Amino acid sequence: MAKKIEKIVLAYSGGLDTSIILKWLQETYGCEVVTFTADLGQDEELEPARAKAAISGVKDIRIVDLREEFVRDFVFPMLRANTLYEGQYLLGSSIARPLIAKHLVAIARQVGADAVAHGATGKGNDQVRFELAVNALDPSIEVIAPWRQWNIRSRTQLLDYAEKHGIPVPSDKRGEAPFSTDANLLHTSTEGKILEDPAAIAPDYIYQRTVDPLDAPDTPETITIGFEGGDPVSLNGQAMTPATLLTELNGLGGRHGIGRLDLVENRFVGMKSRGVYETPGGTILLAAHRGIESITLDRAAAHLKDEIMPRYAELIYNGFWFAPERDMLQALIDRSQAFVSGEVTVRLYKGSASVISRTSPCSLYCADLVTFEESSIAYDHHDAEGFIRLNGLRLRSWAARNGR
Amino acid sequence: MAKKIEKIVLAYSGGLDTSIILKWLQETYGCEVVTFTADLGQDEELEPARAKAAISGVKDIRIVDLREEFVRDFVFPMLRANTLYEGQYLLGSSIARPLIAKHLVAIARQVGADAVAHGATGKGNDQVRFELAVNALDPSIEVIAPWRQWNIRSRTQLLDYAEKHGIPVPSDKRGEAPFSTDANLLHTSTEGKILEDPAAIAPDYIYQRTVDPLDAPDTPETITIGFEGGDPVSLNGQAMTPATLLTELNGLGGRHGIGRLDLVENRFVGMKSRGVYETPGGTILLAAHRGIESITLDRAAAHLKDEIMPRYAELIYNGFWFAPERDMLQALIDRSQAFVSGEVTVRLYKGSASVISRTSPCSLYCADLVTFEESSIAYDHHDAEGFIRLNGLRLRSWAARNGR
Amino acid sequence: MAKKIEKIVLAYSGGLDTSIILKWLQETYGCEVVTFTADLGQDEELEPARAKAAISGVKDIRIVDLREEFVRDFVFPMLRANTLYEGQYLLGSSIARPLIAKHLVAIARQVGADAVAHGATGKGNDQVRFELAVNALDPSIEVIAPWRQWNIRSRTQLLDYAEKHGIPVPSDKRGEAPFSTDANLLHTSTEGKILEDPAAIAPDYIYQRTVDPLDAPDTPETITIGFEGGDPVSLNGQAMTPATLLTELNGLGGRHGIGRLDLVENRFVGMKSRGVYETPGGTILLAAHRGIESITLDRAAAHLKDEIMPRYAELIYNGFWFAPERDMLQALIDRSQAFVSGEVTVRLYKGSASVISRTSPCSLYCADLVTFEESSIAYDHHDAEGFIRLNGLRLRSWAARNGR
Amino acid sequence: MAKKIEKIVLAYSGGLDTSIILKWLQETYGCEVVTFTADLGQDEELEPARAKAAISGVKDIRIVDLREEFVRDFVFPMLRANTLYEGQYLLGSSIARPLIAKHLVAIARQVGADAVAHGATGKGNDQVRFELAVNALDPSIEVIAPWRQWNIRSRTQLLDYAEKHGIPVPSDKRGEAPFSTDANLLHTSTEGKILEDPAAIAPDYIYQRTVDPLDAPDTPETITIGFEGGDPVSLNGQAMTPATLLTELNGLGGRHGIGRLDLVENRFVGMKSRGVYETPGGTILLAAHRGIESITLDRAAAHLKDEIMPRYAELIYNGFWFAPERDMLQALIDRSQAFVSGEVTVRLYKGSASVISRTSPCSLYCADLVTFEESSIAYDHHDAEGFIRLNGLRLRSWAARNGR
Repeated sequence: MAKKIEKIVLAYSGGLDTSIILKWLQETYGCEVVTFTADLGQDEELEPARAKAAISGVKDIRIVDLREEFVRDFVFPMLRANTLYEGQYLLGSSIARPLIAKHLVAIARQVGADAVAHGATGKGNDQVRFELAVNALDPSIEVIAPWRQWNIRSRTQLLDYAEKHGIPVPSDKRGEAPFSTDANLLHTSTEGKILEDPAAIAPDYIYQRTVDPLDAPDTPETITIGFEGGDPVSLNGQAMTPATLLTELNGLGGRHGIGRLDLVENRFVGMKSRGVYETPGGTILLAAHRGIESITLDRAAAHLKDEIMPRYAELIYNGFWFAPERDMLQALIDRSQAFVSGEVTVRLYKGSASVISRTSPCSLYCADLVTFEESSIAYDHHDAEGFIRLNGLRLRSWAARNGR
Repeated sequence: MAKKIEKIVLAYSGGLDTSIILKWLQETYGCEVVTFTADLGQDEELEPARAKAAISGVKDIRIVDLREEFVRDFVFPMLRANTLYEGQYLLGSSIARPLIAKHLVAIARQVGADAVAHGATGKGNDQVRFELAVNALDPSIEVIAPWRQWNIRSRTQLLDYAEKHGIPVPSDKRGEAPFSTDANLLHTSTEGKILEDPAAIAPDYIYQRTVDPLDAPDTPETITIGFEGGDPVSLNGQAMTPATLLTELNGLGGRHGIGRLDLVENRFVGMKSRGVYETPGGTILLAAHRGIESITLDRAAAHLKDEIMPRYAELIYNGFWFAPERDMLQALIDRSQAFVSGEVTVRLYKGSASVISRTSPCSLYCADLVTFEESSIAYDHHDAEGFIRLNGLRLRSWAARNGR
Repeated sequence: MAKKIEKIVLAYSGGLDTSIILKWLQETYGCEVVTFTADLGQDEELEPARAKAAISGVKDIRIVDLREEFVRDFVFPMLRANTLYEGQYLLGSSIARPLIAKHLVAIARQVGADAVAHGATGKGNDQVRFELAVNALDPSIEVIAPWRQWNIRSRTQLLDYAEKHGIPVPSDKRGEAPFSTDANLLHTSTEGKILEDPAAIAPDYIYQRTVDPLDAPDTPETITIGFEGGDPVSLNGQAMTPATLLTELNGLGGRHGIGRLDLVENRFVGMKSRGVYETPGGTILLAAHRGIESITLDRAAAHLKDEIMPRYAELIYNGFWFAPERDMLQALIDRSQAFVSGEVTVRLYKGSASVISRTSPCSLYCADLVTFEESSIAYDHHDAEGFIRLNGLRLRSWAARNGR
Repeated sequence: MAKKIEKIVLAYSGGLDTSIILKWLQETYGCEVVTFTADLGQDEELEPARAKAAISGVKDIRIVDLREEFVRDFVFPMLRANTLYEGQYLLGSSIARPLIAKHLVAIARQVGADAVAHGATGKGNDQVRFELAVNALDPSIEVIAPWRQWNIRSRTQLLDYAEKHGIPVPSDKRGEAPFSTDANLLHTSTEGKILEDPAAIAPDYIYQRTVDPLDAPDTPETITIGFEGGDPVSLNGQAMTPATLLTELNGLGGRHGIGRLDLVENRFVGMKSRGVYETPGGTILLAAHRGIESITLDRAAAHLKDEIMPRYAELIYNGFWFAPERDMLQALIDRSQAFVSGEVTVRLYKGSASVISRTSPCSLYCADLVTFEESSIAYDHHDAEGFIRLNGLRLRSWAARNGR
């Protein structure tokens, strides 16, 4: 800590907060700051970030399109596990943090920086996710978290600092504090303000990428998603890259009001918080992935995946993406996906994505085994007798003992 | 096995299959058969079963209303765990079997019967559920499963047997085989025929208790469910018994097209099968229960519940309701529910049940802890520093070692 | 934090460290300090603590015999789970901390203290255990951890402080730093000094309650332990209270060199540490408890216990004894123990405690079921056929698919 | 089933039971029987099996040395998980079955056999293990289990059959039934006769590869085992193949009375059974593997392994070695072992194998982090404060709520 910092790589959005942080880092550490702006599909123009950074005297400005890497190496591996945090949340924010941290570290190594900085606040999960990822990727790199270090403790103080340092404050940020939002190809999240009351109904204007199901088309739309080895690879028969596919599904899902979630969740740092999430494409993919697994995955493999999923989700939520235990669970999950290939048809309608059909060249489904009619040579009714009797043997012993 | 059977209690619906079974038991065992018909809210008149049993010479005919017991002692305990089999199925059939078995055993003891009989086939899960439950409740009682014992192996043979023995076959059962269905207060299930092709889209006419979301009202309906100690106790402020509450919710959910599920699942006996389920009230309750837990349950308690849930669901699905391991898991679950009390508001619309508000006198949610603004005396931003550093300590050691 | 502290209850051993802490608290906070000294069977005279506290001006001096409560309410419940941390450690230190915290809180409430203090250092697990326990028992009570707050950072500084404040330093503590030890009825632990090198062989003189197996008697000793509902209740046929029983077993085990463990373990605060433990009685009890469970516990109950045990052990190790998730797991464990009754014979010899015989009125063991010879009416060899065929059905489908 | 069997591969030991089975197969199926005798290190001469098979008219006689494959591909992967069934059993029998099944299937394919046969009885686990393995490897191959198919139901009937068919019965097998034993490089097991009473003390004469600890040397012996990537590779500095290493350790362990286990276990087929196991080398390796992991494995990786181990052990015990879920767990385990390299010193004495020293070039142990003395730049005592406070935050909220 006492070590002098010579160069810092900052995760920089170009927004008000990270602009202030940029200035504060330059002043506090008196060293060069490199800005890194990631295109994760957050649907904002990124070039203004370049201009703003340049104005602030940044010489090394990095803007990188990470959309394909994000979906291919982070979203899809997580999807293979049918991951939901606390039974509901698709982890749209959590999964983006390690990717950003990975690039912060890579750039730091390239440019010889000894620290990276992020704009996450001291009460949230993101600080933990950024810092644990950096710890696991390169423990020699220091992490600077201005929100925990400076004296700014409220919005008013933040605006004061901006004004004092000549940082332009957009007019829409001058008044009341905005909602706290995050966006990338997987989701949009909204927190704060009226949402801080878990009894308050979320106002419709906070939604950004999905229509209200009431305003969605009155006619369902049916789409087909193709999978190969556990990952989605095509839409309606057309092969697509990961990011393209997710982008398309976001459009479709958003139009049908799919993927809204209003949730009180448990943060890793110890408190409950309420968030509203929109994950249109991810919600469709989760349904479709479960659909294709339902005919291609062995029962015990599927159940084992379901049993470890909550732990896996918790690790990602808590920021342990690059930790050995996440890697171990990923190995388990990935091992199950070789034959998870085929096509799933999903009906989109007024907020719901419903699987209505699945086919696969690798199907484990066998109509002959199921049918009531005599036909199956593979299944002898008498086998069930022995199966039940031996499964029941310990129960009969147990019941007899208890009754003694 | 060699032991002579003197009296049998038969789980009897009055339908064609169990009527044939009744006759077959009387002929094969030459002993008295007592019929037991349970009212589980399957929405059928049960008195015809009495008449039919009487015609077949049954002297001891039992028709019992189990609706409250079913919801109170089986559905609600399962709901406390937010139980879903394979991530989706609410176990509507699975949870009814142990209750029927319990009463079969109780009646057998009352009337001095040495065996019970059921009409489940040799390929399904229900035979396992009935028999394991009887094993665990009274290992001295034998279970007779005619479908595994007789020579009837097809629908045609079944109808032949009926004709030969003067059992009237309703006209709608003479032609093509019907879908295989099951119904009770929690759900309706449909299997067989065209559904045996997992690629085939389920025809709308198979749905029995829910409208197609397309035909549901264009206006959402908002309801409030009250919970006490983990169980639902009121609807829109009005206290209700368990069965009444679930009946009301079934009406509401059904009207809004809520709770349809089209699933390929893994049977305990080893094959995959496709079923279509309608669980309107249960789907609403699951959402609401997660909603009330979200503000009243401690994080680690919630995560522990989520981690054991798949195992718990599997046990119920497989028929181990009365087994010691289910009982142990139930103890764990129940221990968490004391403070799961409060009210949840749910919006019903076109197939979706969405939690939009939750309040509780036992809330663990604390706006002060979450808010961005300086206010909280309970949370020091600097604590996050130490929290992250010690969580990251092992990762830094690990990464440093790996890089050596 | 800013709140003024008016009265403090200190966990006080009467040793050098807590004597210095006592002085430091009095000086730093300028308020009354109540001392609490727990008799946990650490085999030290506790009256000197009274005299020392009195000399330091303490008016309210509490010395309480907690041995029975310790064994009955903490050690035995943990034993029911066959608890081992990291596969080996019997948690002798971890399990004592919540008990001490419980009494610190109880006394604080009695005497109207607003804080409690402990002498655990800033690198260890005990600080976490004390503080989480207090948090969970009474969040209004503050915890003071002098080792994290004062400036003393080495042994030399500690001795300087003592000298400066007239605290007598025993001659054996003047020279080289001693091993860090902890003792109670369950175990003795030793850490530090040469043990900090995991390659260094532990010298024999560090052991305190067990002889070297080489010096143990050349003749084995056979003892019988009786269990009731999962807890040990008698030794060689003689009923004993929990603490008496454990004390007796410590004597027996110690004499036979049983219960030594030399371990590198993972601390909750993030580093690895090496400790040497002696748990003679506990090691015997663990073997005996597994022995009695082996004939009285249902298979699935036993396996479920084994699966959750590592998590349960981790919770205790990490200090979450009073947390809801530990309580939930305890409920699960306890639910399994009703019939865990009977007698187990254990052979003690040269470091080993081996179960050689077990009997129980509640046994689930049935020789008839096992024997090779034809005799059992309960087991039909043909049942195995169906059992295997249905267990293998999914594997045959899976293999056939994979081979396609 | 109705299909005519044309050629059978029999797992053949040359002992009385499989000799009778050979004859019975030839008579019953009237087809060629190929014998397969595996050298698994069972310490019996195998050439007599050749002679006996030849006398019985077998033309294709296979005797294969599988010792290295057994240890390398089955024992060591299992060891990586520190596998113990029911907390104690090292699975010496369970792990050999899938290997035998693998070769039965391979030979069947080579010689064009349509069935394999084994000599496991209808009450044990081995039948399940053989058959599930064959199912998973080649579902087109039928499994014949004579003990479940023929009418022989007792020892007397077996001897009668032998006599009638001119199969020589060794004199020591004529009288009282022998113990049922199994042996391979990993272990020797003994069941039956007096051991069927779990209260009866096992007589010393049943032990085959270990001395009574009482008769073991009075002087301890210290050995050093080297590991690479999770597997043992050397003994006392000398590199050894897997089978050689295990053979050496069996000698050392046996001489010191190490690895005896007297256990009542739960069979997969539903009953409890009592077995006596001798696993000298395996017991040493388990201790050593835990020892090397203790300094090279990350905490969370280690705990995750411990949590899934009971499930993994259960799968192997139940015969699911070749099932997808075992493979998935193996992937998880193996992913953790890359850095599990180094040396462990173990003291062997009178039945105990105690780790006394461990070193590794990949050690995660850091004395600087642990030491009481001020020195570490990596650990700040104040970090513990934040760590505890945020870990305790949810507990303080919870306790405050509960107290309301």
